[in-house]
Formats: sequence, structure tokens, C-alpha cells
Amino acid sequence: MNSESNSDPEICDIALRRFRDGNVESAHDSVAVEEPLEIRVRGESVAVTMRTPGHDQELAAGFLLSEGLITRREEIVEIAPCQTAEVVGNVLNVFLKPGAVFDLEKLSRHVFASSSCGICGKASIESVHQHFKPVESELHIPSIMLLGLPKKLRDAQSAFERTGGLHAAALFDSSGKLQLLREDVGRHNAVDKVLGRALLEGWLPLRESILLVSGRASFEIVQKALSAAIPIIAAVSAPSSLAVELAEESDQTLVGFLREKTYNIYAHPQRITNQ
Amino acid sequence: MNSESNSDPEICDIALRRFRDGNVESAHDSVAVEEPLEIRVRGESVAVTMRTPGHDQELAAGFLLSEGLITRREEIVEIAPCQTAEVVGNVLNVFLKPGAVFDLEKLSRHVFASSSCGICGKASIESVHQHFKPVESELHIPSIMLLGLPKKLRDAQSAFERTGGLHAAALFDSSGKLQLLREDVGRHNAVDKVLGRALLEGWLPLRESILLVSGRASFEIVQKALSAAIPIIAAVSAPSSLAVELAEESDQTLVGFLREKTYNIYAHPQRITNQ
Repeated sequence: MNSESNSDPEICDIALRRFRDGNVESAHDSVAVEEPLEIRVRGESVAVTMRTPGHDQELAAGFLLSEGLITRREEIVEIAPCQTAEVVGNVLNVFLKPGAVFDLEKLSRHVFASSSCGICGKASIESVHQHFKPVESELHIPSIMLLGLPKKLRDAQSAFERTGGLHAAALFDSSGKLQLLREDVGRHNAVDKVLGRALLEGWLPLRESILLVSGRASFEIVQKALSAAIPIIAAVSAPSSLAVELAEESDQTLVGFLREKTYNIYAHPQRITNQ
Repeated sequence: MNSESNSDPEICDIALRRFRDGNVESAHDSVAVEEPLEIRVRGESVAVTMRTPGHDQELAAGFLLSEGLITRREEIVEIAPCQTAEVVGNVLNVFLKPGAVFDLEKLSRHVFASSSCGICGKASIESVHQHFKPVESELHIPSIMLLGLPKKLRDAQSAFERTGGLHAAALFDSSGKLQLLREDVGRHNAVDKVLGRALLEGWLPLRESILLVSGRASFEIVQKALSAAIPIIAAVSAPSSLAVELAEESDQTLVGFLREKTYNIYAHPQRITNQ
């Protein structure tokens, strides 16, 4: 893997009114750019996501991977902007290999099938659960290395400090070295960009990697990590109940509230050593 | 409006391993519950959202309102759990008045139409922009009242301090009194719950109200507020570029980084007085 610490998310400068010490002044500040990206596969629109422009091909690839729609690099022939779109760059066409199976029914966020109420049960947790295989990994990392990851993430973030409006996701190798960092207004997008890059580079499965997210760990974040077989997920903030449940059943180590000197382990603590 | 400060989101107690001062100990902590909710209208599945259970009818009503699928309380006959679902409570049926127009094509997150690439332009920003009317409101609030809102929000939050994993959305009246607070693992859900309650209670349009969110202000948050004609949106954290743009064109006042003594105004500052 090549190290890449600069994620270069788009930001823009805007005018604002700032209230400080009882006074209002005109000022300028940077905000994170947010624009819609439509992902099309074989001419069909499969998703519109509000994202920060940049690394869009990676976002599309990671989205398809983590939604269980594709599993291997070889299935993708090309990902290219639609040239006839009004805003070129905000619509991406994904071209799949002829013969590649693409099952839109799997798309959890788009349960548009006109299913009758008789199959309600299926629509519940089942519709969002992709049933990826549990992670098989021998990865162990020392506690001291885990504690150092948030600082490495912050040091490498290019825009967060300026806008305060971006979520970050980072991939670290088994020695704690930063491999890849992506930032986005959407936390799912930041993770998808990381996973998409890994897929496109042929790095999968990521059995020796750690995923760190700057915010909370939800079910979807844990499931996305699982789609790439990542054994350790760490979050700077809290996990949800379903994130803990999924990590438990998927043999993934889930760390929350990771700070400079403290952390909690919610599932499979055996991968964190020297405690 | 009745005041209601207790949002009672579901939390659950889980076992974990806690690392502190070089030692690991077994502990218990509360995490926010996250479960999927499927919303069905006239038997058709229109969305699955990962939410914190509680106030689900409000969530469904708010979602339909803010996606532009319904506009008035009278269109809804009943919102009831599907009794044949595997997990009763995680599938909601929305029963609309006979004759009520329900245009699924409007559903921005589900652009499932098999549109050909020739209409790429339309799919871009247009597919997420509901084109609600700009807000017409004479509301003005003093700076000092605005500065006091985050503390009122925190004081009323029931679970956030315990789990650190919930987003909050609150509605305040023109005197700064808290009307309604909702918490959820998803920030869009928290806003939808607030708007849904307002819709079901017949409070719309909310031309004299302020919406405060505990996190960032994205395009979707501003648009959701617009669907209920809310003139002032305040966020504890940063806005995105598109949130600022939409607030500007919708005659909505957008406040960001609202803290105890400071804030920024990104659009329509004239509604904040005594500066």
C-alpha cells in the first residue's frame, strides 16, 4: 500500500456575520462543500448521496462494495462521469463487466419493491443486513498503538480544523501506520471512499487493517467495515446497540470513545494486547 | 402548543471492557438503541431508516412531510404498526385518505426510476431539491435569547449525557421556550420526529419557531425545516455549503457554531436583533 495522508476534500469560502463579545462583525470562513452525487450502474440510478466532491470514483466503488452489490475489483470495468449531465461530475456511470451479477434487490436503502404486507418480517432487520461473512483475522495490536491513532488522524486531516464540518475515516496497517484518509460531510461517504480506494487498488480483504472514524459507530459503519473484512473498528465517539451486536456476531473488535488515554471495547477485546 | 421536554429515547445497558490509566476493567454502560424502521404507504415500502425506537409515528409523518410526499395533517388517516411483522413495531403502515395524491417519484433518496442517461441533468441537484416555497415570516429574536438555546437543549436531553451517541433536535417558540425535543441515532430522524409531531398536532406552518440541532447543518436539515416553514435554523456545529445556499434562497436564517457566547450567521441575519 502507498501511504496517502492528504485527503483534500473540497471546501469553499463564504461571507458570514460573526457574533463575539457582544459585537457583530462581517467575516469570511471556510465551509465544507456538499453536493449531490448520483451513482448509476448499467444506466440505472442506484443512489443519490449528498457528499463532499473529490474521490468520487472511490465513493461509488465503496458504496457498491458495502451494499453487497459487487465483491471484486474485476467486476468494475470503468467508473466515469456522465458527460451529458447538467453538472458534469455529479453523475457517475459505473460500467460493469458483461456477465457480472448485479442484484439491485440487495440495495438496502432502496426497498422499492412493491412487496405486500405479508412479508413485513423480511423487510425489517433483514433488509439492511447484508450477511457478509464474519471476519477471519489473526490481527493483534498493542493498546499503546491504538491510543495513538486519533492523533495521527487529526494531524493528517487537511480541512477539518478549518471547517469543523467534515467527518473523517482512516485506514491504518497492523503497525499503526496511516494508509489512507478520507473526509466528507457524510460519515458513511468517508468510509465508502476509504473502502472504494482499497477495492480499486486491489487491497481487499483488509484482514490486517484498522478502520478509525472521527465520529460515532453505527450499524452501517460496522457493516461497511465488514464488507472489506476489517477486523478492528475504532470510533472517537459512541457506538449504537446494533453496531455492538453486529461486531459481536461478525468477529469484529469494536472500540469506542477512543481518546488520548482511554477507550472502551464493546466486542472481541482479545485483539487488543498488552493491556 | 404543549411544552414537552422529555424525549425518552431508548437506550440499553451493555457490558464492555474499559481501559483507564493503563488498566482494563469490566464495566457496564448505556448505548443508544438503533433498529431499522420500515415506512410503508398504501402497502408500498418507501423507506427503511436506522433509528432509535420511540416516537415512530412522528418519524414517519415527518419523513413524508419533509420529502414532500404529503403536505397536510388531513391526508393521514392513521399510522399503525404492521401486526404481521416479525418484530412488531419496526414496520409502520401509513394509511392515507382516499384520493390523497401520493407521488413516489418525489422521493429523493430513492431515484429508482429507470431513467436513461439522457436525463442525467435532472437527476443531479434537482432530484434532492423539493422546491418548497421560501419562508414568509416576520419573526425576530434577540441575540441574547439565541445564545441561551443550547443550554436549554442540553438541560432537557434525557439520554445524551449517558450515551454520548444521540443527536438532538428541538423546537423553540418565539420567546425562546422549548416546545419539543427529540433524540435519535440519526440526526435526520431527530428532525423528522420534531416535524412529524408538529404536523400531527396541527401546528404547521411553524412560522414563529426556531429549530436547533445538536450537530451540523446539512442541506437536508435546512430543507426539512423549510418543509414546515421554519424561519430560523440554528446548529451547534458547522453548516455545509449547500445548507447555506438553500437557506439563502429560501429566506431562512441559518446560524452555526452556536455556543454560550458566540455564533455565526450564514444567511438572513436580519432576524437576529439587538446585536
